[in-house]
Amino acid sequence: MPTQVDFFFNFGSTYSYLSIMRLEEEAAKAGVAVRWRPFNVRKLFVEQANIPFPKEKAAKVAYMWRDIERRAARFGLEWNGVPPYPVDRSGLANRLGVIAGQEGWAPAFTRAAYRAWFLEHKDFGQPEVAASLLSGLGQDAQTLMSRADSEAGKSAFDAETDVARSLGIFGAPTFVVGKEIFWGHDRMEDAMDWARQTDAA
Amino acid sequence: MPTQVDFFFNFGSTYSYLSIMRLEEEAAKAGVAVRWRPFNVRKLFVEQANIPFPKEKAAKVAYMWRDIERRAARFGLEWNGVPPYPVDRSGLANRLGVIAGQEGWAPAFTRAAYRAWFLEHKDFGQPEVAASLLSGLGQDAQTLMSRADSEAGKSAFDAETDVARSLGIFGAPTFVVGKEIFWGHDRMEDAMDWARQTDAA
Repeated sequence: MPTQVDFFFNFGSTYSYLSIMRLEEEAAKAGVAVRWRPFNVRKLFVEQANIPFPKEKAAKVAYMWRDIERRAARFGLEWNGVPPYPVDRSGLANRLGVIAGQEGWAPAFTRAAYRAWFLEHKDFGQPEVAASLLSGLGQDAQTLMSRADSEAGKSAFDAETDVARSLGIFGAPTFVVGKEIFWGHDRMEDAMDWARQTDAA
Repeated sequence: MPTQVDFFFNFGSTYSYLSIMRLEEEAAKAGVAVRWRPFNVRKLFVEQANIPFPKEKAAKVAYMWRDIERRAARFGLEWNGVPPYPVDRSGLANRLGVIAGQEGWAPAFTRAAYRAWFLEHKDFGQPEVAASLLSGLGQDAQTLMSRADSEAGKSAFDAETDVARSLGIFGAPTFVVGKEIFWGHDRMEDAMDWARQTDAA
């Protein structure tokens, strides 16, 4: 059985774009199975007094977008200028992502959502955008959005956030192999290598 | 003439260990010239309301050391457990580093200082530790420490911090190629590649 890597991310995390568009290919190469697990990273930021990009950090924010642009080019990913930010304020896309993860269509949904955000500059948290993404994947948009907005849908997202907290996660994306956590799109290779070693051991 | 990469770092920056021990070899491979430029990253943290590791961020601090340990192994670097932190509170090692950068012995001094910190768990900002490091390199410790503690020594360090701020730098280490900045030990390869492309253009 292949080693499992849990991919904890958030719909709205900017750097996650650089992982989301490459993860399936890299996991296949490494021979590892991935679980896609959206969690509420903003809630953990508040709890941990972690404010990655306040207004005093204009230099850091400007750098972030330039770094993502350069790294997208490095990885052969598309780039269409700085997208709107923040997105998914209501958490709709994240809660849909939790359902998608449970049902096995998270990779396609997440990639489609990030393409809409980064390349078409749409907020995938807007109900009409989310509905269009779901329909495009042959899913029943209205049923899924009702489930995502239900108490059960909200609880499922909160439960994933509790798991993330208990693992010591403080940012997104984070790759988890057993009890080891690897933070940042730039630790994907480290996580894959760790999973391979675990598998071989 | 080879393209120049400016390496802005701080004596006391933890992740800088992973760059300092590898930088000369990587620069030689890439055929680029490096200037070693210590600056006062703590001053910029305060100005920019950037507190990377406050006490609420216990999860992030624990992660930092584990990440450095794993990455040291990945790069074949030595590791001897978590070293004392913070170090060089008075800035002595940083001001000595500015002089070393001007005089061309910064790589040897910085590597020796980080070995003392990470492998022997000594604070290189303590005068007796700094003096020993200088003497070990055949330098006149007392003269250099007087220069580092002089008004001129302090001004030189402040001036480097001003340059860092004007470049949009907000953390250490940061690699600079022309007007492009690359933050983090994990962007060293990006910076070297950028310098090569600039050189070829």
